[in-house]
Amino acid sequence: MQSMSEENRANRKYLSKIQSAIGTKSQPSKYTYTDRDVILYNLGVGAKRSDLSLVYDGSSDFQALPTFGVVPTYFSKSPISPKDILPNFDPRMLLHGEQYLEIKQFPIPISGTLCTETHLIEITDKGNAALVRRGATTTDANGKTVFYNESLSFIRGSGGFGGSRVPFDRGAATAANTPPSRAPDKVVTEKTGTEQAALYRLIGDRNPLHIDPAFSSAGGFEVPILHGLATFGISGKHVFQTYGPFKNMKVRFAGTVLPGETLITEMWREGQRVLYRVKVKESGKVCISNAAVELMGSGPQL
Amino acid sequence: MQSMSEENRANRKYLSKIQSAIGTKSQPSKYTYTDRDVILYNLGVGAKRSDLSLVYDGSSDFQALPTFGVVPTYFSKSPISPKDILPNFDPRMLLHGEQYLEIKQFPIPISGTLCTETHLIEITDKGNAALVRRGATTTDANGKTVFYNESLSFIRGSGGFGGSRVPFDRGAATAANTPPSRAPDKVVTEKTGTEQAALYRLIGDRNPLHIDPAFSSAGGFEVPILHGLATFGISGKHVFQTYGPFKNMKVRFAGTVLPGETLITEMWREGQRVLYRVKVKESGKVCISNAAVELMGSGPQL
Repeated sequence: MQSMSEENRANRKYLSKIQSAIGTKSQPSKYTYTDRDVILYNLGVGAKRSDLSLVYDGSSDFQALPTFGVVPTYFSKSPISPKDILPNFDPRMLLHGEQYLEIKQFPIPISGTLCTETHLIEITDKGNAALVRRGATTTDANGKTVFYNESLSFIRGSGGFGGSRVPFDRGAATAANTPPSRAPDKVVTEKTGTEQAALYRLIGDRNPLHIDPAFSSAGGFEVPILHGLATFGISGKHVFQTYGPFKNMKVRFAGTVLPGETLITEMWREGQRVLYRVKVKESGKVCISNAAVELMGSGPQL
Repeated sequence: MQSMSEENRANRKYLSKIQSAIGTKSQPSKYTYTDRDVILYNLGVGAKRSDLSLVYDGSSDFQALPTFGVVPTYFSKSPISPKDILPNFDPRMLLHGEQYLEIKQFPIPISGTLCTETHLIEITDKGNAALVRRGATTTDANGKTVFYNESLSFIRGSGGFGGSRVPFDRGAATAANTPPSRAPDKVVTEKTGTEQAALYRLIGDRNPLHIDPAFSSAGGFEVPILHGLATFGISGKHVFQTYGPFKNMKVRFAGTVLPGETLITEMWREGQRVLYRVKVKESGKVCISNAAVELMGSGPQL
């Protein structure tokens, strides 16, 4: 058993490592894709066979869903290795907290090679968890930005290192996206597939949490859970198919979804913004909260 | 309107082209794949999230289903261009008639680069249709055969060219695979997904018949139909999960399947062979008939 002063010394050691890691950039990494990857992505977030523009490359308006913009980050390098700077790091304890996506080019290229560079923005100490915020800039062959992502990871058991408890919360702030008190303007309901996590993995996130029952039970889940970014993509599709394309999207992952559960996306349009949240029908719990998109064009009239 | 002698001359012209095309070999073509393609194949033929050996690359017994052996043929070249030698060739009129697969290496490599060369075996004149039989030999980097496939295509409207009406029917003969009169030894039922053809396409067969309602309606179908080789793979999975691995498989495609329909695979074990057929639950019609596999090992005792 450690004495208090030993614990403090251990904390200070991590704090200094963390402070010096802020701002670190990753090596750039390439992601080459074709229309096959675009269709796989669209199907992975629940596109239907009748959504020809999403599933049929021969369709005159074939396109990637806006949330395809997170895919290149799966193939990016980390600016740091979490186990090198965080206390008690265990990958089974990692959950996705928030995601922010900006689409900087429209239409999204349906094939090509993109380059992504990530950087460490901040690490907040939540006592029982560490919050790690990273940015990722994805550029095309001409160096022009195509997507910008920010993700917030919630790492249970890796807090208590004596760091700041208040995030300075840049682009990914979601607290402002509280829906109005009126009933939702639009609601879309979709049952996920029991094999949806198994399929979504092929898009690029092979974390065993989403497929291996032994791994997910160690993380406290009865079955492997759906990827947060799958729910992100499914709900983004609901917004897209209701209001048209958008130029950015931010969500907070408020709860987990089990493959096979039914998602209910409730949307409120406020000018050029659509605020939304997602509930799991079976449990009644919110899985995405404080979410919003900023519409690309003027959008359909309500 | 053509006179009889003009028709005969036209027929003779095609017949001579056809006769000189028999035996033609294609250029070899390469197929490079990873575990991602293996999982996509297994999911495309209905593997479930609980089938860890089929969907999870981290599983200690991760493997390709035996019917993965047809995949390299999607990336092979044709020995001939059908429109150059067949009368009235229209790709919308093409249906898959039979498939024969031999697995020559076990376990099947879960990644690598394979080379496939195809050859034209025979073209039979069924009056209202042409039957085109092709062979495909797939080898590894050492030139060792991994798979051998034979496929029979049924091309409606391309018969009547005065050719032989009786196939000489080599490896793909299925007439002998008539099931015994007793009740099936084993039955497996599986509902296909409504998006199953949209997903199966990504394995390699992009024929619009399976996704484009305009194309499939021109072929006489109310909605885009499931790939014959998807039904081949689903039923092969049923045999594999009931009796274990097999070294060859031959089927006759007796009817079409619409995505979302339920397949009932009825199996009879006869020594080292399993005879089977597949019915569509909703229509009661047989979609795969005269099918058989030859088991690899001794198989489980019944």
